[in-house]
Amino acid sequence: MTYCCALRLEQGMVFISDTRTNAGVDHISVFRKLYTFGIPGERLIVIQASGNLATTQAVIGHIKNQLELRQEPNILSLHTMFDVAELIGSTLKKVIENVTADTMEQSNYYCSLLVGGQIKDQDMQLYNIYPQGNFICATRDTPYFQIGESKYGKPILDRALSFEMPLDEALRCSLISFASTLRSNVSVGMPLDVLVYHRDSLELPQGKRISEDDSYFNTISRQWSELLKKGLQELPIPTEEYFN
Amino acid sequence: MTYCCALRLEQGMVFISDTRTNAGVDHISVFRKLYTFGIPGERLIVIQASGNLATTQAVIGHIKNQLELRQEPNILSLHTMFDVAELIGSTLKKVIENVTADTMEQSNYYCSLLVGGQIKDQDMQLYNIYPQGNFICATRDTPYFQIGESKYGKPILDRALSFEMPLDEALRCSLISFASTLRSNVSVGMPLDVLVYHRDSLELPQGKRISEDDSYFNTISRQWSELLKKGLQELPIPTEEYFN
Repeated sequence: MTYCCALRLEQGMVFISDTRTNAGVDHISVFRKLYTFGIPGERLIVIQASGNLATTQAVIGHIKNQLELRQEPNILSLHTMFDVAELIGSTLKKVIENVTADTMEQSNYYCSLLVGGQIKDQDMQLYNIYPQGNFICATRDTPYFQIGESKYGKPILDRALSFEMPLDEALRCSLISFASTLRSNVSVGMPLDVLVYHRDSLELPQGKRISEDDSYFNTISRQWSELLKKGLQELPIPTEEYFN
Repeated sequence: MTYCCALRLEQGMVFISDTRTNAGVDHISVFRKLYTFGIPGERLIVIQASGNLATTQAVIGHIKNQLELRQEPNILSLHTMFDVAELIGSTLKKVIENVTADTMEQSNYYCSLLVGGQIKDQDMQLYNIYPQGNFICATRDTPYFQIGESKYGKPILDRALSFEMPLDEALRCSLISFASTLRSNVSVGMPLDVLVYHRDSLELPQGKRISEDDSYFNTISRQWSELLKKGLQELPIPTEEYFN
């Protein structure tokens, strides 16, 4: 499985992906699931993928191909993030249809994508693209999307995240979401790829890879466990009627 | 859907179940999923159910029928919790087989059960019974089971719960697990049924029903959100390399 999470907030965007792929528990590999494209000073586009690895790689392959062969349209020439999402969505749909025309069987080849970024003089956008090629867009009310093993890490986002949260705090929030998921589900695994984008910077961040021995990540994960344990002890004691 | 959680700890057992059932989002009902049986001073048996409601009710119906008609064996006459789990497991298996012999189709009628309790002069036991009628047993290493929508509420249990934790703290821990699940998934819903059993008491607790306006539950849920928000702010700030 996979866990990818992307936030579109007032100050910028945060993208985090794990790198574990598995075809059975005895066939585990590390594959990057976070891809960056862009033109410094003009646009940044980030794609995260969850699902069938062959489908993911085919979609990314087509996108890169279009750029290398200077085919039009491509994700660096299109004028809006909406058009970029449409192109990526239709590419995804075609890739799956190429494997099989049987719509029931297609579900074996599904993949979901998060596509976020910014084009000069436009707002940042974040899309959640479904295997059918259609998509939804993040808003101020729902400023984040998750794909893959999303449930373990959802409560912390639902409780703490808001559109106005400063980027560094939102980054900590989403790292904790990953720490909780890693702890509870072995199909999500290290290293993690992290990318933080500051609104209107139009720079292509290098991103950071977090490995098993990352001291910052291990520190906040440990500190978080201690916080929860201490927090539980400090909650008011249940009333007598709970024990009747 | 459903969320049920049961803990078997040093000092006793905690059982919590939600009550929401749904056949589509426009067909939501309240059904109790936590059942208590026993003989005060001799045994307590608690059953929690997740899955097909007709299957659940048929299993409970058969168990009650056996008791009313004084059929042997029944869950109040068997000598060990293991035998009780075997009887409930085989009843579950038969109920599903009665609906259809087609093993593929049987999955539509699946239900999972948690069965916990204590018989005089024996240890407390907690079993997770699968639709196939077989089961696993909670241990000191893994002192809890969940059935239904288990993922949202798993991280807090994995991070904080231990076999040695005092009962009132374990109760708070599992209530927070429910609060997080309720917040992130509408298919799990109030009221909740809670039951706490003190080891060797051999009493049949009344249990408590937590409704939407329960002030204790709402207080700890609110306090927990504040704790997490404050905790995030207090985590060390990510190093510069996260923002490159």
